[in-house]
This record gives sequence, structure tokens and C-alpha cells, in this order.
Amino acid sequence: MTQNINRTRRSLLAGGTMAALAAATGAAHAKEGAPAFDKIYDVIVVGSGFAGLAAALQARLKGAEVLLIEKMPVFGGNSAINGGAFAVAGSPLQEKEGIKDSPERMLQDMIRSGRGLSHVDLLKMIVEGTRPAFDFTLEHGVQYKPFVQHFGGHSVPRIMQTVESTGGGITRPLADSCRKHGVDMHLNAKMESFIRDADGRVIGLKVRERYQFPKEDSGVLQTYGTRKGVIMATGGFSRNLWFRMQQDPSLDDRLDSTNHLGATGEGMLEMFAIGGAPVQVDQIQLGPWSSPDEKGFGLVSQFNTIAGFPMGIMVDVRTGKRFCNELADRKARTDAILGLMENGKPVYPVCFTDSKGVAKAQTLRNGLKYKVIWQFDTVEALADHFKIPAAELKAQVARWNEMVAAGNDKEFGRALQLAIQLDKPPFYACRVWPKVHYCMGGVGIDHQARVLTVHGKPIEGLYAAGEVTGGAHGASRLGGCAIADGLVFGRIAADTAVAAKPAAL
Amino acid sequence: MTQNINRTRRSLLAGGTMAALAAATGAAHAKEGAPAFDKIYDVIVVGSGFAGLAAALQARLKGAEVLLIEKMPVFGGNSAINGGAFAVAGSPLQEKEGIKDSPERMLQDMIRSGRGLSHVDLLKMIVEGTRPAFDFTLEHGVQYKPFVQHFGGHSVPRIMQTVESTGGGITRPLADSCRKHGVDMHLNAKMESFIRDADGRVIGLKVRERYQFPKEDSGVLQTYGTRKGVIMATGGFSRNLWFRMQQDPSLDDRLDSTNHLGATGEGMLEMFAIGGAPVQVDQIQLGPWSSPDEKGFGLVSQFNTIAGFPMGIMVDVRTGKRFCNELADRKARTDAILGLMENGKPVYPVCFTDSKGVAKAQTLRNGLKYKVIWQFDTVEALADHFKIPAAELKAQVARWNEMVAAGNDKEFGRALQLAIQLDKPPFYACRVWPKVHYCMGGVGIDHQARVLTVHGKPIEGLYAAGEVTGGAHGASRLGGCAIADGLVFGRIAADTAVAAKPAAL
Repeated sequence: MTQNINRTRRSLLAGGTMAALAAATGAAHAKEGAPAFDKIYDVIVVGSGFAGLAAALQARLKGAEVLLIEKMPVFGGNSAINGGAFAVAGSPLQEKEGIKDSPERMLQDMIRSGRGLSHVDLLKMIVEGTRPAFDFTLEHGVQYKPFVQHFGGHSVPRIMQTVESTGGGITRPLADSCRKHGVDMHLNAKMESFIRDADGRVIGLKVRERYQFPKEDSGVLQTYGTRKGVIMATGGFSRNLWFRMQQDPSLDDRLDSTNHLGATGEGMLEMFAIGGAPVQVDQIQLGPWSSPDEKGFGLVSQFNTIAGFPMGIMVDVRTGKRFCNELADRKARTDAILGLMENGKPVYPVCFTDSKGVAKAQTLRNGLKYKVIWQFDTVEALADHFKIPAAELKAQVARWNEMVAAGNDKEFGRALQLAIQLDKPPFYACRVWPKVHYCMGGVGIDHQARVLTVHGKPIEGLYAAGEVTGGAHGASRLGGCAIADGLVFGRIAADTAVAAKPAAL
Repeated sequence: MTQNINRTRRSLLAGGTMAALAAATGAAHAKEGAPAFDKIYDVIVVGSGFAGLAAALQARLKGAEVLLIEKMPVFGGNSAINGGAFAVAGSPLQEKEGIKDSPERMLQDMIRSGRGLSHVDLLKMIVEGTRPAFDFTLEHGVQYKPFVQHFGGHSVPRIMQTVESTGGGITRPLADSCRKHGVDMHLNAKMESFIRDADGRVIGLKVRERYQFPKEDSGVLQTYGTRKGVIMATGGFSRNLWFRMQQDPSLDDRLDSTNHLGATGEGMLEMFAIGGAPVQVDQIQLGPWSSPDEKGFGLVSQFNTIAGFPMGIMVDVRTGKRFCNELADRKARTDAILGLMENGKPVYPVCFTDSKGVAKAQTLRNGLKYKVIWQFDTVEALADHFKIPAAELKAQVARWNEMVAAGNDKEFGRALQLAIQLDKPPFYACRVWPKVHYCMGGVGIDHQARVLTVHGKPIEGLYAAGEVTGGAHGASRLGGCAIADGLVFGRIAADTAVAAKPAAL
């Protein structure tokens, strides 16, 4: 009997207390030494944003039996509500418009934005994977607008945007393809903990089915085994106030977040708690284009990225003057905007463009309707509404128009490829204030998406992709690179998992 | 029998794989359901720097049976080779010299240096504890120099320094006191992993005795139980190149470290791997006062903190001009120095003072002997040696002397309380280049030094103090505040542990 006890013990040695308990419970009713699973798959994917859907679809297309679990009542995660902007180095539209771009050029832009913190080995995988990932989305029915956009921090226009202007334009077709190809997809299914074998390999998950977010004890527990491994695509923790404030106490509850309520990061935390390396976890990005006049991502964020920033200017209401490069990377702009505070109180800057600048701004109409964007016939009226010194503002607009004509932003060195003179009323304006948007940090992975321990060794049977991982983006992620990261590394994780030696379950 | 098996299982459910194996092995030879320990203590302290020694001594003085383990062949850890500078808010010497100071004033200095990332609840404990901790060291035989010093980032002179000018001036007397009062002290004893009970409480350690750093499989394994808990005082990870580069890839092997070779951070990593919260782990400080002409902490670091920076000036060799406030906080100075690079290659600035300025510099003589500090009869000779434009340098010295006379550094706003005119040859100069010095980040704790999980709950039986913890210092620790943090939180951890409900072993 002693021998049997020891063999059973060996099956219990891994994971947190809960995982081990689950395995123990299973073991009591199963064959000696092996936990009993309610069902066994080749690959289990946790999370259904860009990374999770790309991983599940890729693994399924390679012949794996795949389970995808999503804790919320809808698929798509936070990806579904993002702006749908995808940075592609070398797209057909760039070629058509004569824009010279390459993975190497995109790499240099991302390294610059990362401020010395970027893991270049991961970035290389991303930039080289953007075009194949873009083609992959086309094959699965994603549709993009027929023009390429210029986002802050990128040295050339390289943003492809879904026709819907949201990430849902990608997650919906990918989820449809997953379903069509036979991925087992569970909504309201929350990963509770890992199940590991005696060598530490991840061989399954304890999952709370019929979970009702955010009731932690709702639903019923099931255990699922995995021969090839678990791919974690659980996103960021912008909505986990305690953990976010541990990393950056200044990101307190006075700061809103653009993220959906489910962005609470438990998947990442579970990986840390079984020895996954934390990497740059306090690098948390604020989006510089959001509005203090609405909640969450809202209408203004998209207005500013497609119109306000590339086609307009942003001014300090106290001076009527620009105060930063409106196309600098997100961190530079956010730091500049937060720098406007007076005695810890926000001073909201105003961003505006003219009637030509708003041609592509799909959220303009609703923005006007819900009074988060305003329309003015003259610069004076705009100045008056926001209490900006009118003469100063008019002088700024005149200087701007001259600089655009000369092709040289002498004030802040902004790239002017898409810039326009502001001279065709009416003018459209909004107030701007940053919101917590993206977690650059996360769990450490290698270039094959294998999760690394604190000692730098891969954890067998565990892969991660997208926002839950750390290192690629360093101190500041460029716009359009979340979709790039998620889709590219989701597919890499699937390739690595499918090629793994199967666990003996 | 089933019931017995289950009880035995319950004792195995916690900790990493190794810990569980150890517990399992123990359990097989012990009474049902409890691991067998080679010895049981009230409190076990891991690490013998400022925090570890203060914790062990404090716990012993309160009557606890204490084991202190140190993986290296000598006590003192990295603390023994630090500069021995202790920031005390409200010391007798400050009172004597009429320097107005308070814990609140020190708090504001530390918050400023932390750049918004500081955990103020932890800082408050530190600043309020400095005077009691200072008195504690006096009671145990520590001796300080009879003058107070002014370090960068502090708004007033508040640094007390050991007569030995090293932290060994504190660690040696504290270790002696520990021994005298009966702390069980083991050298070459490396913590391998935690042993936890079914509820996750830390109830012991697996320890590698007769360990020979850095041979990971040397020595023999022992298990020690603890009724009140384990206090982790294992310091930073400046010498763990892989983990340090995961956090900040720019800190590669071209950058030296001031730390001893044992500063590899395994204790912190083990805490992460059982669910301890990682906090601001990528906030890693470079010391701005070290020399490219010698290895490790060296002689120049102390020369610059006591003489070069407070009594002299630092110039760019290409221009002969100052380029930063020599008493700014460490991050500001480091960033300024690293900003001198040309195409990624260092351009070493030169720091110098005159014969009055070096009066208190104990490392001057050896610095001259080992040619890491040089002596010059004139400013011209100094300029010639370092290839600095002589006329520019003379003009800078003249401007400096005028500003000191006027009591106002118009160039960089430096506090001039201790500054002197540079007019009494000979002059003493050294080259300066930053080295990796201190890890601000670490494991999350509360104000009672209880280690917090990623979900913000204390891990029962686990406490941490000093450099291994994260959050107090935010983005930049002020000089003299490592001793403050270590001594204050070491004592707090001991108080919390001693007051804990004992585990039933």
C-alpha cells in the first residue's frame, strides 16, 4: 500500500492548492496514479480575443481537438471592443499607395516606442508575422477599409482597420470559423487552476462551467485534460484595481479604463503562482485619445485616432497652443497630457479638425448626438465654448496651416504625410483625457510562445500569447500592434503546442 | 484507509513540486498527516543583511527560538559591502547642527524620488522607524561618524555613516549580538523551497546545508519547521543576468554591478512561484557614482558620495560643462550620465573637488594608489589629463565658485548646504559610469511585512523585509534608504511573526 500511496502522491505535486485538490479528488476515483478528467483534448485555449481565437483556429486547422473556454457570456474578450486597427508591415494597400514599409522598419518603430525595454526576439516574430496573419484574417472573412491609416509612433501609414471600426470585425469571423471547423467552444467557462503532473507539466485545467461573471463561486467545476498543452490568451488586468495599483499606485479609481469589465487578469496571476516569470508587469499604458465626457473606450477614442490626431491638432485650453506631437507614441502623448494637471486636478486639452478631417470618422454622428464631440462654424466659437484664448488659438491654427503647406512641423516634428490645413469649417472638437488601456507586461515567453519560469526554463504544456504576455512592447505599445501581437503569437502558440510531444494521460 | 490517505494528501498540497516532495518524503516517516522536520524553530530568517539580522535579533530579543540561514560563506550579504550610509529623520546630530528634519519631510523626499510609483503606506513605516532603528543599532554597538552628510535627492543632510564607511559596520555588530543572544546561525545554508500545510501556510523550509555557492547541487538537504513563520530577507537580483534582462534588456553583461556575487534573487523567485505578488520588478536602479576603472562597488563610489558630488562638480569631458544637478536623485543622475553616450558608446564624465572637499574621503588614498582617482595641481592639468577643453573647464569652475558664493545654483538648482568653492589645489578627480545597484521591485508586502499573494491576501507564515520587497521606493530609491528600509522592516517582520498564532506542527 505504501507504494500505491506514493504513486498517487506523485500525481498531486503540481499546481496551486486548488489544482492539486482537484487532481486528488479525480485520482480517488480513477486508475492508480492518474487524475480522472471529465474530458480530454489535444489543446485547450483560455480566452477568446485575437490571440485565443487565432490559436484555437490554427490548432484546429492543423488537426488538433481543441477546447476554447471564455469566462464571459460572449466571445471576443476585450478584443471585440477595441478599435479594430491592425499594423501590417507590407500590406497590398501600402504597395498600391506607394508607401515604403518593411518588417524591419516596423521593428525599429516598435523598439523606439519600447524605450529600451523591448524584448527584440519577440518583436521580430511579430513584425515578420503581420502580413501572414493579415492574409489569414482575409481567408477567414475579415474585411478592412480601403485605405491605410497613420497612427502615432509609426514612421509610415500602416494601419489596416476593419470596416466595422472595431476588433469585433476580426473576432466574429474568427469565432465563426472556429465553430465551422469544429473547435469545442464554451462560454461562461472560467479557468480556475492548472493541473500538472509530477514533472510539473501542465496536463489539464480545472474549469468553472456555467460561471456568472463576476460571481466567483458560481457554476460547477469540471476538469479537462490536454495532451499537447494549454494556450493562455487571457489578456490584461486593466480592470483589476488592486493589482494595477500595486504596480502603479497613481492608476487609482479616479482613472477610467477603456477595457471591458472582464479584463481582470486571473489567468496571468495563476501562471505567476505556478512559477511563470513576471516580466515588466508595471508597464501599463494609458490611451491618450479618450474622453473624460464618456465611459470606457467610447466614441471619442476612434474619432481621435482616425480624425482628431492625424487630421487635426490638440491644444492646451489655457494657452490655445499645441503642447506635443499629436502622432507621438502613446506614452509620450499621455505623459504630455497628464503634465497639464494643476495641483493634481485635470486640465482637459481639446483636439479638433475641420470638415475635411472628419470624412472617415464613423463615430462622429453619435459623438455629436451624445455631446462628446461638438461642431463649430468658426475657430472663435470653438475657442469660446472651451474658454480658450481666441486670438492665441487663431494664431496657432495659422501657424499650423503654414507648417502643413511647408511640409515641416517646426513645433513638434510631427510626421505630416496625412496632415491637412484646418481651413474648411465646420470644425469638430472634443475634450481629451487618458484612460488605462493596455498592459505591456505579463508572463514571460520565448519566441515560440512557451511560458518561461522565473529561472528561464519553459513550463512544459503551457503556452501564452497576446496581452497576457510581457516584454515585446517594453514601456509603450504602438497603436495597431495589439492585434498584430495577438494574431501572430496566437498562431505561433498553436504551432508550438501542436508540435509538442503528447502527455501520457 | 481512504480517510488516512486523504489526510496525508492534505499535508502535501502546497508549495512547489520540490517542497511537496520534501513534505511527502517527511510524511512517509512521520506521524500521519504531518511532515517530519529535522528541527523546529519559532522563526526562521533567510538572509543576513540589514533586514535579516535586524529581524533575527528582534525576534530573539522577544523570546523566540530563531534560526538564521545565509547561503554565502560569510554573514552580511550585500549589506556588508554597501557604503554604510543610513538616512535618519531626526538624528541627534541633526539637532546639534540645527538641521530641521522630520519623518514627514523624509517621506516627501522619498515620494518625489519614487516618481508616482511609491507605496506610501510602506514609506510611512520606514520614515517613522528610522530613529528607533538608529537607536537600536547604537544599543548593539554600531558606531557612526560624528558628522551628518547630504546625499542626492534628500532635501536636507540626514545621512549617518558608520565609522568603517561600509554596511559591515552595522552587520558585524548585529551578527555579534545575534550570536550572543542565542540565534542559531548557519552559514553556507541555502533555502531550497518552502514547505506549506494544506491551507497554504508556510510551516517550514527545505534547506541545503554545507552549500558551496554557486554549485546548485552541493551540500545536503535538511528540513526545518517553523511555528511562527519564515522571514525572507534575501535581497535583490542585480547579479541574476537572465532575470534582470527579462525586466530590462538594456542591463546586459556590458554593465557591471556594485553587488556581491550572491545577489541572485532566488528567495524572491521562490516567493513568486508560490503565489507571492510581483511588484514593480523591472524598477532596477543604477548607482550614478561608480567608476568604469574598477570592478564592483569599488573605492570611487564612496569617494563620490562623500566628496565628489556634495563637495565638487561633474562635467562632460567634451564641453567642460556640468550637465546635471550632482545631488539629484540617483535615477535623474544616472539618466543624465547615460545620456552622454555617443552611438551607444560610453563617454565617461569626470567628477572632481579640491583639497578641502576630500577631507572626509577615506577611500582617497587607496583610490590614488590604484589609479582610479587622480591628483592635479591645477585645473589645466586636470583638463589636460582627461582631454577636457581647458578654457571651458576653467570658466565652469569660475561660474561654480560664484554660484556657491551667492548660494544659488542657477545652472541646475542644486542644494548648496554643504557645497564649497573649488579654489584650494590640489584637485582630485575620477571618471564616472553607472553600475547596476539596487532592485526597487520585489515581492508585495503590507505595512506589517506580511507577504501578499497576487490576489492581495497575506500568505500565512511568510514575511519579507528589505530589498527583496517591492513598492516602497517606486522608480528610484534615495541613497541611505536601503539601510533604513532593511532595519525598519526587518524589525517589523519580526514583531509580526512573533505575534502570529503558532502553527500546529
